[in-house]
Amino acid sequence: MNAGKVYLVGAGPGAPDLLTLRAAELLRRADVVFHDALVHPDTIALAANAEHVAVGKRCGRHSTAQRFINKRLVDAAMKHAIVVRLKGGDPMLFGRAHEEISALGEAGIAFEVVPGVTAALAASADLGVSLTRRGLARSVAFLTPRVGAGEKRNDWARAAASADTAVIYMGIGEAAPITASLLECGVAPSTPVVVVENASLPEQKRFVLVLKELPEIAALGIAGPAVILLGEVYSELQEQALTTSVQARRA
Amino acid sequence: MNAGKVYLVGAGPGAPDLLTLRAAELLRRADVVFHDALVHPDTIALAANAEHVAVGKRCGRHSTAQRFINKRLVDAAMKHAIVVRLKGGDPMLFGRAHEEISALGEAGIAFEVVPGVTAALAASADLGVSLTRRGLARSVAFLTPRVGAGEKRNDWARAAASADTAVIYMGIGEAAPITASLLECGVAPSTPVVVVENASLPEQKRFVLVLKELPEIAALGIAGPAVILLGEVYSELQEQALTTSVQARRA
Repeated sequence: MNAGKVYLVGAGPGAPDLLTLRAAELLRRADVVFHDALVHPDTIALAANAEHVAVGKRCGRHSTAQRFINKRLVDAAMKHAIVVRLKGGDPMLFGRAHEEISALGEAGIAFEVVPGVTAALAASADLGVSLTRRGLARSVAFLTPRVGAGEKRNDWARAAASADTAVIYMGIGEAAPITASLLECGVAPSTPVVVVENASLPEQKRFVLVLKELPEIAALGIAGPAVILLGEVYSELQEQALTTSVQARRA
Repeated sequence: MNAGKVYLVGAGPGAPDLLTLRAAELLRRADVVFHDALVHPDTIALAANAEHVAVGKRCGRHSTAQRFINKRLVDAAMKHAIVVRLKGGDPMLFGRAHEEISALGEAGIAFEVVPGVTAALAASADLGVSLTRRGLARSVAFLTPRVGAGEKRNDWARAAASADTAVIYMGIGEAAPITASLLECGVAPSTPVVVVENASLPEQKRFVLVLKELPEIAALGIAGPAVILLGEVYSELQEQALTTSVQARRA
């Protein structure tokens, strides 16, 4: 068998110039690119000589089934030398990389992972607030809750409660049950929270609040990808006057 | 005052081509670059027209005092348009960004943060193991312990114990007390551990073990920057035959 290689590549948080040099070079050389719905068009356009295939994976919207993506990656490697699987953020953090790596491994296809900038770091850069400010935080948890039917465990909330800073991915649609779980795990209602929508992009928005107000975030109509950051490190933002915040909208 | 701007830039985990496009462009335009000791020479060389200033910050070695770095950044912005503070990994994760941002803010100097790929993500790419494998992990904690004199709290270990996966930064020199703290917080002695030294670089090495063996890592002479990863997601590595591992060295 003379199969090609599949590169699982992190596209970064959104802004096209937050791609790595290695990812850009691979896109330029790619024969085919399978990309998430959220990857910036300018990033995909770097793959000028490749076939472009959108494979969904947008939270809460229609997406191609994971098993079908796995099969298409294997099939593509049978026909092409350089297959790029371009994922939003970093492939190894909430990226379903395991499923794709396992499928490639079973089919005997070589693969390589190219890391990317994850949304929590881009949001922190936008905010100008360190996730691990000395004296306040030496641990940060990145997590995603599943509080829907069938999964009732609060393990994710305990992880958030135990870390000095927490960043919740893919949680905006479940703000009310997330808040309830965090309060139940002992996180104070007054804990500073920032929600960053579209981190790293020109249309970025931030909402500064405290935990007990988080359920109200649903009313703000956040449509882009967003992360929820919480912890004492964000208290400094609450002392600033912010034009776009829950507090400002109330004023 | 007609001061320049200071860019706090993530240099990524080590490999020069894991720099972002934005960081590379800023280095090309920079007038002066203040860089950590661990940043790759090829990355610093991108700043072809800039003055290069090494400002230390290598764990356990002599480093320039933080207050002095802060002052030099402010002074540089008084003389130059584009000042780059180049930090290993990402600036907002264990990067002392807060101290520098505060100093710049107090001096009225404009700043911007450019995120980077952090070591945990690079190590995960090298290993081919997702930090958040579905079904096994939906939370990951990044943390740094301080178990030396004066700081005896085990909060960091509780954060590690509560998350499904944990990545310990800057902990190799304190492997024995780290292990003791984790065991005390209820982490099982048989928990899979991987230590990745020089993630993303050609000289990368990995050591596959279980938690109770972690104190022995001191005998392996790890000199490069290393992260300690632990959690059930690494059980698959233990089932593989690995040439460079504690187990292999014992055989």
